[in-house]
Amino acid sequence: MALLICVTGRNNDKLVAKLAALLPQQTLLEWPVDDVSLLKEVEFVLAWNAPETLWSQLPNLKVVHSYGAGVDSIPMQLLPPHVEVARIVDPNLADDMAEYVLGQLLSHKLRVREYGDNQSQQIWKPRRARAGRTVGIMGMGQLGLAVAHKLHVNGFNIKGWSGSAKQLDNIEHFSGQDELAAFLSGIDYLVCLLPLTEHTKGILNAKLFALAPDHCVLINVARGGHLNETDLLNALAAETFGGAILDVFDTEPLPTSHAFWQQPNISITPHVAALTSLNTAAEQIANNYLAMQEGKTLVHLVQKKQGY
Amino acid sequence: MALLICVTGRNNDKLVAKLAALLPQQTLLEWPVDDVSLLKEVEFVLAWNAPETLWSQLPNLKVVHSYGAGVDSIPMQLLPPHVEVARIVDPNLADDMAEYVLGQLLSHKLRVREYGDNQSQQIWKPRRARAGRTVGIMGMGQLGLAVAHKLHVNGFNIKGWSGSAKQLDNIEHFSGQDELAAFLSGIDYLVCLLPLTEHTKGILNAKLFALAPDHCVLINVARGGHLNETDLLNALAAETFGGAILDVFDTEPLPTSHAFWQQPNISITPHVAALTSLNTAAEQIANNYLAMQEGKTLVHLVQKKQGY
Repeated sequence: MALLICVTGRNNDKLVAKLAALLPQQTLLEWPVDDVSLLKEVEFVLAWNAPETLWSQLPNLKVVHSYGAGVDSIPMQLLPPHVEVARIVDPNLADDMAEYVLGQLLSHKLRVREYGDNQSQQIWKPRRARAGRTVGIMGMGQLGLAVAHKLHVNGFNIKGWSGSAKQLDNIEHFSGQDELAAFLSGIDYLVCLLPLTEHTKGILNAKLFALAPDHCVLINVARGGHLNETDLLNALAAETFGGAILDVFDTEPLPTSHAFWQQPNISITPHVAALTSLNTAAEQIANNYLAMQEGKTLVHLVQKKQGY
Repeated sequence: MALLICVTGRNNDKLVAKLAALLPQQTLLEWPVDDVSLLKEVEFVLAWNAPETLWSQLPNLKVVHSYGAGVDSIPMQLLPPHVEVARIVDPNLADDMAEYVLGQLLSHKLRVREYGDNQSQQIWKPRRARAGRTVGIMGMGQLGLAVAHKLHVNGFNIKGWSGSAKQLDNIEHFSGQDELAAFLSGIDYLVCLLPLTEHTKGILNAKLFALAPDHCVLINVARGGHLNETDLLNALAAETFGGAILDVFDTEPLPTSHAFWQQPNISITPHVAALTSLNTAAEQIANNYLAMQEGKTLVHLVQKKQGY
């Protein structure tokens, strides 16, 4: 029985050390493994952008645990039906996400980047702050609700949208494609916090930009795959949409040749809205690994068909 | 009996029209007056940066009303003892001020300007948000308390400092020069919202920067006169102070030759933190003018000796 850490594209020394300290009696393997015969011992994989070829080499796999809040990098269709999938749910992550959205929204209202540009040219040009206080949030999961609460206590009016109908305090809620136009009507900011699924891929597209007010500004903190990048550039060029603050992109790091870098109405941050805390994540992963061994129910399992 | 509007350095057409609409039966004069003999009719002056020569020409003056929250542009020593001084107290002003401080503070935590600079050079460089959550606020008047409340509900720890001892909810309060060091200890941000008086002029100086933590960032939204500009530049150069977000300056507009424009650790906004609403101000001024005529007590009078 072993736990395989397959988190690619970054240095995992601290993560491995932390898990080893929390699971001193357990066998931890790190991808790539020196001896592939060890893979048959693996019952639990901690995964982030794992190679697709991995999954067919794990005959005893029981659990795939995402090393993040999303599971869109895990190919559900390649996993046997009995394999369970879990994700990180970090309360600090929700706090950080809410503070990122509030901070970016207030920065826009207060024209922080505009005054920064003016400063570099010694330009003194007072303007009133932007007035808009109505925010539409797509995605009413843990993160969406945390953002809604934060904005509400700071005097913003909240509209929410998700796949199914809901009753939520202090949120005017809409659901489904039928209610998209009513949801988008009158909003000043649009925050995307949807999970990335076949239903939500490319949902931030020309149709949506046309339905939203011309001055509306998008804050995308979900996944790059939600956004049709060409549609956004076209809507900005046509001035039928106001701007975008983007933390996530189809390709990360965003290639230096990408048109987004030069857009005056697009603000880029490098996927920093909510960074998983190593300590929180490691504890949750270790607890889920022990729960699996003891036949207990794991926490933060996802519905594999829904993808969140 | 007449009301003299002496608000210099800006276009007052809207203000005059609004006051005329609110006071249809009254004589309104605008500085400079064509006929100086009319000045003997003046009992009430609405003033902002009025010329010092004005005050000796008003034999029947009863009230000077500042066209702003501060009265530091009104030379108290030139006014006869019986003349009352009032100021604008705009509830929206406090809301705007609190949102400005929160927004600037979150922008700094989230590195909004840093990522803006990176974007202009196509640099993708993720960094964790700054962690500091302890804010010291100097000045516990209407604006200081509004900022303290706003930051508290957003999860910041608040220390307060003012001239005299106070008991305030959710604020660790300090007073006087004796407690300045204890107040400054451990703070990540320092917000100045003091009135400008002989006691507070130049209070943001080398001594204060030396007592505050090296990473501490100043947010000055009070008056340029509170800040010793040379001391700030020296402390930033010596890296014994962290940075400054400045909305107010000794000379406004800030001269293009000023060293502040080029400082990477100074963010300049052009006196926009809290802009008086024309409607609110005009109503308050008109009501105070009528109160004076009817012998009633005016609202928002200041203690002339204290200067606030």
